Amino acid sequence: EKNFFLIAGPCVVESEELVMEVADKVFGICKKLGIPYIFKASYRKANRTSGSSFTGLGDELGLDLVAKTGKHFHLPTTSDIHSAIEAPLAAEFVDVLQIPAFLCRQTDLLVAAAETGKIVNVKKGQFLNGPSMKFAVEKIQKAGNDKIILTERGTTFGYQDLVVDYRNIPWMKEHGVPVVMDCTHSLQQPNQTSGVTGGNPQLIGTIAKAAIATGADGLFIETHPNPAVAKSDGANMLRLDLLEGLLEQLVKLRKAVI
Amino acid sequence: EKNFFLIAGPCVVESEELVMEVADKVFGICKKLGIPYIFKASYRKANRTSGSSFTGLGDELGLDLVAKTGKHFHLPTTSDIHSAIEAPLAAEFVDVLQIPAFLCRQTDLLVAAAETGKIVNVKKGQFLNGPSMKFAVEKIQKAGNDKIILTERGTTFGYQDLVVDYRNIPWMKEHGVPVVMDCTHSLQQPNQTSGVTGGNPQLIGTIAKAAIATGADGLFIETHPNPAVAKSDGANMLRLDLLEGLLEQLVKLRKAVI
Amino acid sequence: EKNFFLIAGPCVVESEELVMEVADKVFGICKKLGIPYIFKASYRKANRTSGSSFTGLGDELGLDLVAKTGKHFHLPTTSDIHSAIEAPLAAEFVDVLQIPAFLCRQTDLLVAAAETGKIVNVKKGQFLNGPSMKFAVEKIQKAGNDKIILTERGTTFGYQDLVVDYRNIPWMKEHGVPVVMDCTHSLQQPNQTSGVTGGNPQLIGTIAKAAIATGADGLFIETHPNPAVAKSDGANMLRLDLLEGLLEQLVKLRKAVI
Amino acid sequence: EKNFFLIAGPCVVESEELVMEVADKVFGICKKLGIPYIFKASYRKANRTSGSSFTGLGDELGLDLVAKTGKHFHLPTTSDIHSAIEAPLAAEFVDVLQIPAFLCRQTDLLVAAAETGKIVNVKKGQFLNGPSMKFAVEKIQKAGNDKIILTERGTTFGYQDLVVDYRNIPWMKEHGVPVVMDCTHSLQQPNQTSGVTGGNPQLIGTIAKAAIATGADGLFIETHPNPAVAKSDGANMLRLDLLEGLLEQLVKLRKAVI
Repeated sequence: EKNFFLIAGPCVVESEELVMEVADKVFGICKKLGIPYIFKASYRKANRTSGSSFTGLGDELGLDLVAKTGKHFHLPTTSDIHSAIEAPLAAEFVDVLQIPAFLCRQTDLLVAAAETGKIVNVKKGQFLNGPSMKFAVEKIQKAGNDKIILTERGTTFGYQDLVVDYRNIPWMKEHGVPVVMDCTHSLQQPNQTSGVTGGNPQLIGTIAKAAIATGADGLFIETHPNPAVAKSDGANMLRLDLLEGLLEQLVKLRKAVI
Repeated sequence: EKNFFLIAGPCVVESEELVMEVADKVFGICKKLGIPYIFKASYRKANRTSGSSFTGLGDELGLDLVAKTGKHFHLPTTSDIHSAIEAPLAAEFVDVLQIPAFLCRQTDLLVAAAETGKIVNVKKGQFLNGPSMKFAVEKIQKAGNDKIILTERGTTFGYQDLVVDYRNIPWMKEHGVPVVMDCTHSLQQPNQTSGVTGGNPQLIGTIAKAAIATGADGLFIETHPNPAVAKSDGANMLRLDLLEGLLEQLVKLRKAVI
Repeated sequence: EKNFFLIAGPCVVESEELVMEVADKVFGICKKLGIPYIFKASYRKANRTSGSSFTGLGDELGLDLVAKTGKHFHLPTTSDIHSAIEAPLAAEFVDVLQIPAFLCRQTDLLVAAAETGKIVNVKKGQFLNGPSMKFAVEKIQKAGNDKIILTERGTTFGYQDLVVDYRNIPWMKEHGVPVVMDCTHSLQQPNQTSGVTGGNPQLIGTIAKAAIATGADGLFIETHPNPAVAKSDGANMLRLDLLEGLLEQLVKLRKAVI
Repeated sequence: EKNFFLIAGPCVVESEELVMEVADKVFGICKKLGIPYIFKASYRKANRTSGSSFTGLGDELGLDLVAKTGKHFHLPTTSDIHSAIEAPLAAEFVDVLQIPAFLCRQTDLLVAAAETGKIVNVKKGQFLNGPSMKFAVEKIQKAGNDKIILTERGTTFGYQDLVVDYRNIPWMKEHGVPVVMDCTHSLQQPNQTSGVTGGNPQLIGTIAKAAIATGADGLFIETHPNPAVAKSDGANMLRLDLLEGLLEQLVKLRKAVI
């Protein structure tokens, strides 16, 4: 009987101390609970709402810290890429290349990611349904790569809210690939007048439980020791000290599902 | 530890044979699985898309068959009402008065239902969120009745689809009342050019599992021995012979949640 | 070449002074601009979000004041009804029976309104598209009444916003009936945590201009000398002193369209 | 008093014959009607739903044909770009760089386009509202370029439909830039199971008229002598022989608005 896997970490590489602290804590919890763990941090944020928001420490430094963290804990790692030319660079440092939701239709990017031979995790666009992700899968397969993950991260629901449609879990599983629920970005509240995306972190458990119940193979959760001071997506990250309790419930739920 | 309860039956009172057959089968399954069961059938359909669709056998005959079924199996019963004057009539026959989603804002109807002293089950309008159901709860309470259930049945998502937003489960539970997931109508595909609402019955399990995982207290499932010939909502009813297998999974899931 | 017609007045019959003041002012403007005018005020508000909001002066007093206003200015009048039993009562006082959007699928109500022989103005539900309003039209026609108006009033767009889809204007005109744009309720911001629906009255001109340009036959505009103190829908009513300037622009636009 | 401007052409550079035929016809109509005209054709389609759809003749050949067409008719030209590295290349050939809606949040792309010194036309994402486009404007301005256009192209409305929210016209005009309505892509029907986006070309006039009435400064219309055989977006392009009649009506409307 298989457990779900977890993609987790801070939203962005803020500093070596932060990524090591988060990875250390999550690594320990996952080991204890038998959850395969992929360390995640973005080395660059290319699509912040506002141009004055933090975008990262610099590409190579950021990627290097992600890789270093993975090596230290013997963990696979992932980060997101935003253009075709980033693919080979990032592939030297991480095991899973993540395609952002806004970019899931960019053929060049999907093909470049595919051609690295790494696992490609495509987030479903906020404007797409699960069946349409078939075309993203096919673009990657056609480029010779069968290692594909699809991630649900909520759908546009009016301007200032997203809704998670759980029909997308079985619909995307029909494409023959593992399906992940992004519990963090699914709770975003976009288009806020402040230029800072809002959130509802108290609902992370609701989003995650429904995902496990409906058959998700993995969960994506951004976590931070103190989300209030995080440099990106603070409004939705799970407080690191709440992660263990949540994962315990989810493991129990998973056993009832499989 | 408490199990969830089930509101189930055929969509509409088609005939005595039908309601008895369905009630008998569901009664047996629920007894076996320890699920409290409320028998449901509409005695009249007042809001069919098209004026030429079947609307029922006649009010008194329909209500009488619902009550007879309840008495026969010693089951509580429920049916929906559509105007204030129907409330006292229906209250003589059923234990739970159900308020249709389109009508959940009609103060007169809520008050009339409340004043019967029966349990009032208000379906959340396709245009409302869970927090707004507070006002429906308050209208009923102010009329002197605290026996309230709230039911999620999907939200308008473009014209021809509904989406179930599971945040509504915890949001509605905050009003201090039991919350039910209507697994049948949540899968409707409205505004079809045929004038007959479509559906996705193969997703009933997905809708139900996510509901149990996120804390729903009850499930609403319309079921029919042969949905293809049903006189209303055939596109979404669960085939009666699939009910037991689904409920077994859900009971297992429920135990992992509580 | 025909001008558009106007359905206008205060949202609800607050007092004789108010309805007379509004009718007098609008009557004068419409006469000057050659706009056929139907006086509108609700005699009862049956679906307020919150049970503690103002619902009217009482049915007969409210209806009587609507009728009195119409007689005084030789104007046709309209008010909305909420259940089948109200239809014959209201029909004694007004010329156009308006069916609220939430109730546009209630067959009994449509038939009762139809049977009065009055003009029936059905507001399109926030959950319906224009083509589906065919079924409302057919229910009324089948009850022997061909005097039908359809009104667009916005569509559910996330929980706290509505969007006006102008495709509904030509789509509803295909049903062979006059189509009205409700410029007031289309700007509602529902599901506010306060229990009071919000609005965007500065956009009334935008909503109205697009409606005239796309072929709407009539406009519905609630107006009040001082929306800030209005007892219902204050957040969206047009300040009475702004009406003339807006209508002048719209008449100019109309001439360019026909 | 100023007329609106028109951005028009075939969706994609299919052949020299096609772009010349379309440009010639549209050039003649616009000259006659006093409409400033910008010739548009995509030299590459980077985000087709399906990987097997036509993507263009090759970058340099495509760009060269766009530029050649512009020179021949003394017309400004535009094409869309999909990554930062394309910006300086495309800027050698066209006058307006268009940013696709899915990419309107990609800071690198906006900055690269801005730095060419060309006019940058940003399409509003299907997941954004007009006020949020302020951040796109600011990113371009901060990169030293004030020549900005914003384009409305519809908003996600369920999975298989888009809706045009005309509030975005005044909302985007508040950013101090010209606002264009894309009458073609606003009518897309995405997420079709065929992998080919559908459409509603008979509603192009409705979309355009409402845009002019609400103050749009420009219109974007893809047109083709025979949309049925077009290699991209055929479902929404206007038949070339219908363009003149439509533009005549719109010019008349424009005069009534300004």
